Amino acid sequence: MNSTSALNSAAKPDIHICEVGPRDGLQSIARTMPTEDKKRWLTALHAAGLREIEVTSFVPAKLMPQLADAAEIVAHALTLPGLQVVALVPNLKGAEAAMKAGAHKITLPCSASEAHSKANVRMTREQMVENVRNIVALRNEIAPKVQIEAGISVAFGCTLQGIVPEDDVISLLSDVIAAGADETGLADTTGMANPAQVRRLFRRAFAAVGKDKVGAAHMHNTRGLGIANCLAAYEEGIRAFDSSLAGLGGCPHAPGASGNVVTEDLVLMFEAMGLRTGIDIAKLILAREPLKTGLPGEPLYGMTAEAGLPLGFSYA
Amino acid sequence: MNSTSALNSAAKPDIHICEVGPRDGLQSIARTMPTEDKKRWLTALHAAGLREIEVTSFVPAKLMPQLADAAEIVAHALTLPGLQVVALVPNLKGAEAAMKAGAHKITLPCSASEAHSKANVRMTREQMVENVRNIVALRNEIAPKVQIEAGISVAFGCTLQGIVPEDDVISLLSDVIAAGADETGLADTTGMANPAQVRRLFRRAFAAVGKDKVGAAHMHNTRGLGIANCLAAYEEGIRAFDSSLAGLGGCPHAPGASGNVVTEDLVLMFEAMGLRTGIDIAKLILAREPLKTGLPGEPLYGMTAEAGLPLGFSYA
Repeated sequence: MNSTSALNSAAKPDIHICEVGPRDGLQSIARTMPTEDKKRWLTALHAAGLREIEVTSFVPAKLMPQLADAAEIVAHALTLPGLQVVALVPNLKGAEAAMKAGAHKITLPCSASEAHSKANVRMTREQMVENVRNIVALRNEIAPKVQIEAGISVAFGCTLQGIVPEDDVISLLSDVIAAGADETGLADTTGMANPAQVRRLFRRAFAAVGKDKVGAAHMHNTRGLGIANCLAAYEEGIRAFDSSLAGLGGCPHAPGASGNVVTEDLVLMFEAMGLRTGIDIAKLILAREPLKTGLPGEPLYGMTAEAGLPLGFSYA
Repeated sequence: MNSTSALNSAAKPDIHICEVGPRDGLQSIARTMPTEDKKRWLTALHAAGLREIEVTSFVPAKLMPQLADAAEIVAHALTLPGLQVVALVPNLKGAEAAMKAGAHKITLPCSASEAHSKANVRMTREQMVENVRNIVALRNEIAPKVQIEAGISVAFGCTLQGIVPEDDVISLLSDVIAAGADETGLADTTGMANPAQVRRLFRRAFAAVGKDKVGAAHMHNTRGLGIANCLAAYEEGIRAFDSSLAGLGGCPHAPGASGNVVTEDLVLMFEAMGLRTGIDIAKLILAREPLKTGLPGEPLYGMTAEAGLPLGFSYA
C-alpha cells in the first residue's frame, strides 16, 4: 500500500483505464475547446498516470468542427512518454488520416442497432463490417503496427429503436473480429445498461470471440448506473475501462444528463478495492483545470473531486 | 413485465426500499422545510409505492430545529395506508417520544467509531449498547409491537478517525443484537465504502448474527460509489436498502457532495435488472415537486430524473 501516490509503482496495473474525454466528451459539446487548452489537458491527464487516451476523432471538420485540429492533437499526444495514442475514426478516410497522423490505435464504432447506425454513419450492418475489413487491409498495407479496435456501440439499448436484441450484439461482435479487428468491446453509448445485462452480455462476448479479443467496457452514467455497470463488468473478468474526466460530455439525446463514467470516481473505486490503476486521483483533479479554462462554465460531474479522498485512503 | 407502472402488482417485492430523505436528508440541511410541504412530500412518496419511510427524528428541537415537528409528521404518516412509519432516535427520551407518537419502527444509530460516537451522541461504545438495552426494555413495557433496529453507523470509515477496524464493526453489531435489537444494518454514513469492503463486511455480519437479523444497506453517494455499493450488497444477499429521493442531504463533513444514494436511480437499477421494487419511477420524479416547493434552490441529485426512463424500459 502506498498512501501518498499511485505513481511510484513500476508494476503493470491491475486495471487499465482509457481516458476518452478529449474525444467522447468534446464531440458532444457544441463549443470548441481551444487547441492549446486541449494540449494542456492531455499533458495533465498523462501526468496523472493515464497511459491510454482517446485523444480525438478523424471526422470531417464540416460535421464536427470541435475536432478539426485532430492531426495537431495527435502530434502533441505523441510527445507524451509511454502514452498509447488512440483516435476514433468512422470510415476508411478517417482511418487513413489517423494512421498518417501517427495514432497508435484506431477505434471504430459499429452500431448494434441498425436504426442508430443508419442515422449516425449512414451504413447498414453489412457495410460496417465491410468497413472494418477495408480498414484492416489499409492498416496492413500502410501502418502494420497500428492496433484496430472495432467496438460495438449502443450495445445495451438505443435511443431510436429501444431494446437491442442481444443476438444482434453478439453476431456483430463476432463479425468484426472475423473481419480482422484486433479487438472489440461493448459500449453503452446511450446510458441504458444495467448490471445484470452487463454481466450477461460480456459473458456471451467472451464465449463468442474469446476473452483476449474483448477489450474495454465503455459505460455511460446517463442514469447514474455507470460505476455499478463497471463493477459488474469487472466481476465478469473485464480489466479495461473507458471513462471521462469530470464525466465530460453528456449524451445529445438526454439533455442535462452526464455522459461517460467519471474517471476520478472510477479510479477511486478500484484503488479502494485494492486494485492498482497507476493513476493518481489528486493529479486527476488537477487535470480539471485546463478543462475549466478551455470550456468555461461547462458542467463538471463526479463526486470525488468535490468530497476529496476519504480520510485514511491509501492507494493499492 | 409491465411496461406502464410498477404499482399494479400485488406480489411482495424482490427488493425493499426504505426512503430516508425526510430524516437523513432534512437533518443535514440547515433550513427548515415547512411542515405542510413535508406532509405533501410523504404523501407523494407513498403514492409512488414506497411502503417504508424514515419520516423524522426525535431529537431535541434545540439541536435540530428542522425536525421539531416530528410528532405531527408521524401522525400524518400514520394516515398513509400500508406504510411502515420509521423514526430515528438517538436515546431513551427520543425513543419514548417516538413510541408515544405511534411510530411502527425506531432506528437507533450506533457508531462503530468511538471518535464519531463521542462527537455525535457523547456516548462510549458500552453506553450505546446499554442505550439499546434500555430502549428494548421500554419498548417491551409500553409498545411491544414496535420494531427496533440498531444500525451500525460509520461502519465503512469515519471522517474523524479514518479507517474503522472491521472487528470493531462486527463486535458492535453482535452486541446490539445481544442487547435485544430486532435487527441491525450497516451504514456508510460518510460515503467512504467500496464494493469489496461492502461484500466482506456484510458476509461477516451474516456470519456473526445470522442473515435474518441484518436489515438494510444504508449507502451514501459522497464519492459516486453509492449505487455500486448497493449492487455489491445485493450480490451478497441483501434485499433491503435505504435511499433518498434526489439524493437529498449532503454530508456535513463533505461540502458540495451529495448524501444518500438516489432513490430514483436505485429503483431504476433494480427494475432494469428484473427485480421488482413495487415503486413507480415516474411518480417518484413527481415526488420531487413538494421538495422543490418546500426547499427552493436546494440541489437535487440523480440522473434518471434528468434523462428520463430508457426507451423500451419495462418494470420487472
